[in-house]
Amino acid sequence: MSEKQAVAISIRPASPNDAAGVLAHVSQTSKETSFLTMENEGPNITAEAEKHHLEKINESDNNFLLLALDGDNIVGMASIKGGSSPKVEHIGELGVSIVKDYWGMGLGTLLLEDLIEWAAATGVIKRLELTVQARNKRAIHVYEKLGFLQEAVMQRGVKDDDGSYLDVCLMSLLIGGTE
Amino acid sequence: MSEKQAVAISIRPASPNDAAGVLAHVSQTSKETSFLTMENEGPNITAEAEKHHLEKINESDNNFLLLALDGDNIVGMASIKGGSSPKVEHIGELGVSIVKDYWGMGLGTLLLEDLIEWAAATGVIKRLELTVQARNKRAIHVYEKLGFLQEAVMQRGVKDDDGSYLDVCLMSLLIGGTE
Repeated sequence: MSEKQAVAISIRPASPNDAAGVLAHVSQTSKETSFLTMENEGPNITAEAEKHHLEKINESDNNFLLLALDGDNIVGMASIKGGSSPKVEHIGELGVSIVKDYWGMGLGTLLLEDLIEWAAATGVIKRLELTVQARNKRAIHVYEKLGFLQEAVMQRGVKDDDGSYLDVCLMSLLIGGTE
Repeated sequence: MSEKQAVAISIRPASPNDAAGVLAHVSQTSKETSFLTMENEGPNITAEAEKHHLEKINESDNNFLLLALDGDNIVGMASIKGGSSPKVEHIGELGVSIVKDYWGMGLGTLLLEDLIEWAAATGVIKRLELTVQARNKRAIHVYEKLGFLQEAVMQRGVKDDDGSYLDVCLMSLLIGGTE
C-alpha cells in the first residue's frame, strides 16, 4: 500500500440520511472538474427530494450508490442507474466522482470494483455502460483496466465551458451470461 | 409519386390539443413493432400530463414533435428531444414511429427530412443521434440515406420480448458548424 492510500477511507452504500452530504459532494466535484459528460442536477435539488431519491435507489434492484468517506466526509461517489423499463432494465449506467484532493489514490478503481461486483450479484444487470470525455485519458485507462471496451467516439458529445465541442467515448462492460 | 404515396398525408408540428391522439398513437405503434429500443411511456401518462408535455416542447428551442396525419388520424410521429443542460443542449435525440398500415410509403423519410431541416434552423442543435436495433435494416438504410453515420454497435443494447439480448446501433448526424 502506498503512503497516499494509507488515508483511512471507508466505503459503504448510501442511505437516505446521506442526502445533504451527497448534494454537497455533487456540488463540490462538479466545480472541480471540466470532465463531466452531463450536467449534475445537484444544486437544484432539495435535500428532501434527494432523500426520496436515495430511498428509491435502495428499493430498486438495478440502482446503486456507493460512497467513499474520509471520516464523515464524502470524498468519492460511484453510481449505477439502471434502465427503468423491461427492455433496458438490464443496462446500468455508471457514474463516478472523486473530490480533487483524493485524485490519484486509486479511489475510483476501488469504488468501481465494488460497483461491478454488486452489479454482477444482482443477476439483473447484464451490461454496464458509461460515457467519458475522450481527453480524460486517466479515467479511460482506469475503465480499460477494469475490462471496459470502447464502443464509440461520439463527436460533439459534450460542450466544454468555453463553448467548444468535445469527443465523448461510449464504453461498456458485459456482465455474466444472458441465460 | 407512387400509387401508395398518393394517400393524402399532411405533416405539421404537434400542438397541446393533440395530446390524446399522440398517446393513442404511441400505444398503437408500440404494440405493432418489436423494433423499439426503449419502452414508450405512453400508456402510463394521462392526457393532461401529455398536454403539459406538448406545451413544454413548444416552448423549448431544442425539442420538436412532428405529426403525419391521414385526415384527423395520426399515422406517423417524429421527435427531437434536446439535451436539458448547457453541456448537452446541442444534442438532439431522434425518435420515429409509423403506424403499420403506412409502412413502406416513405413517410419516415419525409418526417426525418423535416426534422433535420428544423434542427438545422434552430442554430442550437449541432448533433442528432438515435438508437436503432441492428436487425432493423430498413430503418438503418433510411438513416444512412439521410446522412447518419454509425458510431457504435452496443452489445445487449435492448432486451427482446422473448428475453434475448439484441445489438443496438448508435447513429449520429452532425449539423452545421461549431462556431
